[in-house]
Amino acid sequence: MATNKRGRQSFVLPNKPVITHWASIAGKKESEGPLAEHFDMTSQDTYFGQKTWEQGEKRLQQLALETLMKKAKLHRYEVDVVFSGDLLNQCIGSSFSLRNTGIPHLGLYGACSTMAESLLLASMTVDGSYAGRAVAMTSSHFASSERQYRFPLGYGGQRTPTSQWTVTGSGAALVCSQGKGPQIESCTIGAVQDLGIKDANDMGAAMAPAALDTIRAHMEDLNMAPEDFDLIVTGDLGQHGKEVLLELSRREGLNLGGKLTDCGNLVFDNTTQDVHAGGSGCGCSAITLCSLLLGKLEKGTLQRILFCGTGALLSPTSTQQGLPIPGVCHAVSIISGR
Amino acid sequence: MATNKRGRQSFVLPNKPVITHWASIAGKKESEGPLAEHFDMTSQDTYFGQKTWEQGEKRLQQLALETLMKKAKLHRYEVDVVFSGDLLNQCIGSSFSLRNTGIPHLGLYGACSTMAESLLLASMTVDGSYAGRAVAMTSSHFASSERQYRFPLGYGGQRTPTSQWTVTGSGAALVCSQGKGPQIESCTIGAVQDLGIKDANDMGAAMAPAALDTIRAHMEDLNMAPEDFDLIVTGDLGQHGKEVLLELSRREGLNLGGKLTDCGNLVFDNTTQDVHAGGSGCGCSAITLCSLLLGKLEKGTLQRILFCGTGALLSPTSTQQGLPIPGVCHAVSIISGR
Repeated sequence: MATNKRGRQSFVLPNKPVITHWASIAGKKESEGPLAEHFDMTSQDTYFGQKTWEQGEKRLQQLALETLMKKAKLHRYEVDVVFSGDLLNQCIGSSFSLRNTGIPHLGLYGACSTMAESLLLASMTVDGSYAGRAVAMTSSHFASSERQYRFPLGYGGQRTPTSQWTVTGSGAALVCSQGKGPQIESCTIGAVQDLGIKDANDMGAAMAPAALDTIRAHMEDLNMAPEDFDLIVTGDLGQHGKEVLLELSRREGLNLGGKLTDCGNLVFDNTTQDVHAGGSGCGCSAITLCSLLLGKLEKGTLQRILFCGTGALLSPTSTQQGLPIPGVCHAVSIISGR
Repeated sequence: MATNKRGRQSFVLPNKPVITHWASIAGKKESEGPLAEHFDMTSQDTYFGQKTWEQGEKRLQQLALETLMKKAKLHRYEVDVVFSGDLLNQCIGSSFSLRNTGIPHLGLYGACSTMAESLLLASMTVDGSYAGRAVAMTSSHFASSERQYRFPLGYGGQRTPTSQWTVTGSGAALVCSQGKGPQIESCTIGAVQDLGIKDANDMGAAMAPAALDTIRAHMEDLNMAPEDFDLIVTGDLGQHGKEVLLELSRREGLNLGGKLTDCGNLVFDNTTQDVHAGGSGCGCSAITLCSLLLGKLEKGTLQRILFCGTGALLSPTSTQQGLPIPGVCHAVSIISGR
């Protein structure tokens, strides 16, 4: 049998699984940003009708999955598996959203790389016919993240220029063996990179080396070049992290110049929304992919993108113990399918 | 193409990936228990030479992976992907153990079901030839768990009769497309079950309904019966959870009686080790599988087991917010291969 593995970190998907439907749910600040019209639903209530922000984040994932299944006209017993994870300790946003639904669930932790990680695993599972329909999903919530990772919101802490704004939102994508829509052709699994950056308010810089490593691996393993893509889209490097990635790639002779964009810069308008270096969080790349990007691929205004989920694998405990911030990046190559 | 999916939650692995090597590292209490002679390495130092228990847990995973690669005579660039996760917030045991190794990493969160979840995904990845060699790995640490989930150890909190003892240990298994050893023939992905149990000191009872659901799904989806297995091994239900599972299965007409055993009961001797209801934690099923169970399968003294990783998907936050404990269970059917 011919192997699907390519090079050191990548694999191809010979059956090119199809993303037939996608859904995005976003919060108040996101609804005031440039992607507002592309979201399926937005809410002005930061609790999403729940008693706590953590349960609000669970509700975000429920809404994303419900919306996805409604768009796809599927009942929950027709979904074979959900790959999902989030930033909350023990990923309670994901597990609580799926309890008693009867939907098989494989939980992930990839920090903000989760949308790419879940898409990579969902597409592999469908490509190998271990499932017919798989969902890739994730979420983040500004308020639940702030109090878990930083300070209680009421404390009113000052934000540094390189800090980013955690997106309140959830995105879900349905990957199928058949149907119409954008297709996944290959993936690259990232390795954990740690260059010793310790500033938890500069996660873009901590993740940039991982992004470079994975983008370079994708190009080498699959014999591609940046010119082969309409866009190379990182998850949440933000403005500062994107500049670090451009500088690092220039030094290595990899010209990402005209192709590179970042979901953290697409989701907010930094001139009016005061988000400092841009958006972040699992939800940042999830709602950008599951609205603007997949929409453009479906229409054919984008032909091929490399979607690169970036994750900072720190915890408040590791930071308090003086450790640096490891980063990871997983990449998924998506074509229009038109 | 024939599909590998079977029934609602299961799939077969037509190429039957091989677990060619495995490794287990354990702590002091585990080294005094019935499995002592089966572990590759034990340590009397709860810090494993590190400054903190969390970094000690990272070191546990490093030791498990290093031992595994030594046994398999592999260099790190010959491992295509590591699937791993742990109980620490943001899974820092796993991500920090792999930083700067260059090994592609997909992070998981399945609580104590992680050994089964990682084995399921590693075997799917190898079976579909997306990787040639994949590692499934996890860990837990008594001291890092106690202070994260319960109380600082110095507080000397009283333990209830249904409470379990988190295993200090790490297990790793190498899944290959070729070679000699036990083989994985099929897997069942669990759905999140929540029957409203709120006692964080009785996690066995909270996980038992999920174990029943997955074991039943495995039998139905793959047309198997408990008699077809030498053992049905749950991860960490402990004595009380095992009794709950037996009672629930009796009510449903599924006779697990003579086949059921639990890693939480195998890893400690409850008559001498004062562990109350038994062992728990990701490391509990990991070090039991990666020593005693795979050893017996290799020798042929076991011909087929259903390895059922059980996870309690709570967090201290969800408990403090008054929420019940969702459970999940993933099952992997392993045959001797002799």
